[in-house]
Amino acid sequence: MKFSVTVTLKKDVLDPQGKVVQNTLINLGMNDLKNIRQGKFFEIEIDEKDEPSAKNKIDQMCKKLLVNLIIEDYKINKVS
Amino acid sequence: MKFSVTVTLKKDVLDPQGKVVQNTLINLGMNDLKNIRQGKFFEIEIDEKDEPSAKNKIDQMCKKLLVNLIIEDYKINKVS
Repeated sequence: MKFSVTVTLKKDVLDPQGKVVQNTLINLGMNDLKNIRQGKFFEIEIDEKDEPSAKNKIDQMCKKLLVNLIIEDYKINKVS
Repeated sequence: MKFSVTVTLKKDVLDPQGKVVQNTLINLGMNDLKNIRQGKFFEIEIDEKDEPSAKNKIDQMCKKLLVNLIIEDYKINKVS
């Protein structure tokens, strides 16, 4: 089974990298840009047929390594 | 309008960062893990009411700055 995980900074956490990208895009002439925030993306393939159990394992991976729960949120989606 | 952009390395491009994450997860006991690849994620808010035109602007941002088209693929999704 294949899952995708998106990791984003929590709303109230500053995103300096995103701000730099935003300023650069505005300097390139993209004046309609209101806000941009950067995050991480993982594509995870797992050897497990049962969906709830697979999702649970992905969740464990997020909590143990992929996500800093203090400043980040994450979302798990099934791809295939 | 709000869009999300996911940027992933093309299939044949090596992903050393993903490999490190994969090895670490396996060392943590996640033996079912088959493959993991890392990418980037952007949440972009744009001041444009017309959807095709907004999408087109996001596409320009990707091509001009966010994505390295030689080694990366990208996907644009409307969020709201």
